[in-house]
Amino acid sequence: MARISESTVRRLSHYYRVLAEVEAEGRRMISSHRLAEREGITSAQVRKDLSCFGSFGRRGLGYNVQHLRGEIRSILGLDRRWRVLLVGAGHIGSALLAYRGFAAQGFDIVAVYDRDPSRIGQKNAGLVVQDIADLPRAGAQGAEVGVIATPIKSAQEVADALVAAGVRGILNFAPRKLFVPAHVALRTVDMTMEFESLSFELHQARAPRRRRAPSGG
Amino acid sequence: MARISESTVRRLSHYYRVLAEVEAEGRRMISSHRLAEREGITSAQVRKDLSCFGSFGRRGLGYNVQHLRGEIRSILGLDRRWRVLLVGAGHIGSALLAYRGFAAQGFDIVAVYDRDPSRIGQKNAGLVVQDIADLPRAGAQGAEVGVIATPIKSAQEVADALVAAGVRGILNFAPRKLFVPAHVALRTVDMTMEFESLSFELHQARAPRRRRAPSGG
Repeated sequence: MARISESTVRRLSHYYRVLAEVEAEGRRMISSHRLAEREGITSAQVRKDLSCFGSFGRRGLGYNVQHLRGEIRSILGLDRRWRVLLVGAGHIGSALLAYRGFAAQGFDIVAVYDRDPSRIGQKNAGLVVQDIADLPRAGAQGAEVGVIATPIKSAQEVADALVAAGVRGILNFAPRKLFVPAHVALRTVDMTMEFESLSFELHQARAPRRRRAPSGG
Repeated sequence: MARISESTVRRLSHYYRVLAEVEAEGRRMISSHRLAEREGITSAQVRKDLSCFGSFGRRGLGYNVQHLRGEIRSILGLDRRWRVLLVGAGHIGSALLAYRGFAAQGFDIVAVYDRDPSRIGQKNAGLVVQDIADLPRAGAQGAEVGVIATPIKSAQEVADALVAAGVRGILNFAPRKLFVPAHVALRTVDMTMEFESLSFELHQARAPRRRRAPSGG
């Protein structure tokens, strides 16, 4: 199988959701046209993407919904579970522990770490918060994914500790760029950036002719 | 003030966080070089960005941390609060209600809606979940932002209802593209996509030479 681009993966992710919807509606077949809809994708692109993984469609009939969904599920690795170490038991960490959709996506949080003495030893969603200083000693304990939900200033240090402990993937919720070795997969969910960007646009729309006088610093 | 691009806003968002860090360290001045670090931004870009909002820096001395932070805070509209209607009291909605960082960014959830009869009338984080069917009647009640945390198939319908109710901004957590009028600001946080993309990369790394036989479908 050729190297699959990040944008192809994102489209597969999209197809997977459309297929889930269509399957819930009880439909058996789907056209490449329907799979393309909504995201500004052409049906030719759909056929091209899917042909990378074997020719699932039949000319004039389209794709079998259940079969294609199973195939994409397997391609994306959604048919298996990942053991996750969560670092940071603050706002985002607690919300992630409460977020059952995280488990629904195959991510099982098996341990929680923090550096704040007032949090260490407390129970959060059934897990006792452990001291981050113990992470190097404990190792990844079979966990393949680390989730970083710490303040930005600790994020790189935590990433280094997770990599040293042996995780192969990191999901970063701290709003900064992180550096990890090439063999470690890194994805960032920057909610703060989206919130601030929305706040900016609302604010500007409200005061469109607002001007700032130059002010020496 | 000239139209500010989305990427400039994202950089301002970055500078804002660096300034918060540096202020916490007790430093009074900061160079454009230090503001640029980590994100692959040049110091010339920093000076250009900040000059759009008035010349805050002094040659050879840099920028006053507290002053610049206050200015960016005000430019991004982070010095004010937004009233928020949350639609969807499922996994993501509940996590958002539990996420205190949302309020820390100036977003106050004032009402929660859902369509599921088993959720309507229940209390969630101090708010009684209301029937989404009542949203058009209630209107936005002074709320400027709507947050969509529903399944993808309801998301567009909910967006339309929020726009009709009078919100000016939408924060969308449903993993699909939404269409809103030009006067409404829209930002999407697609966690599902990041999770699936990470899952894919881990999965491929584990089975790098995995091949799929063509399968007629």
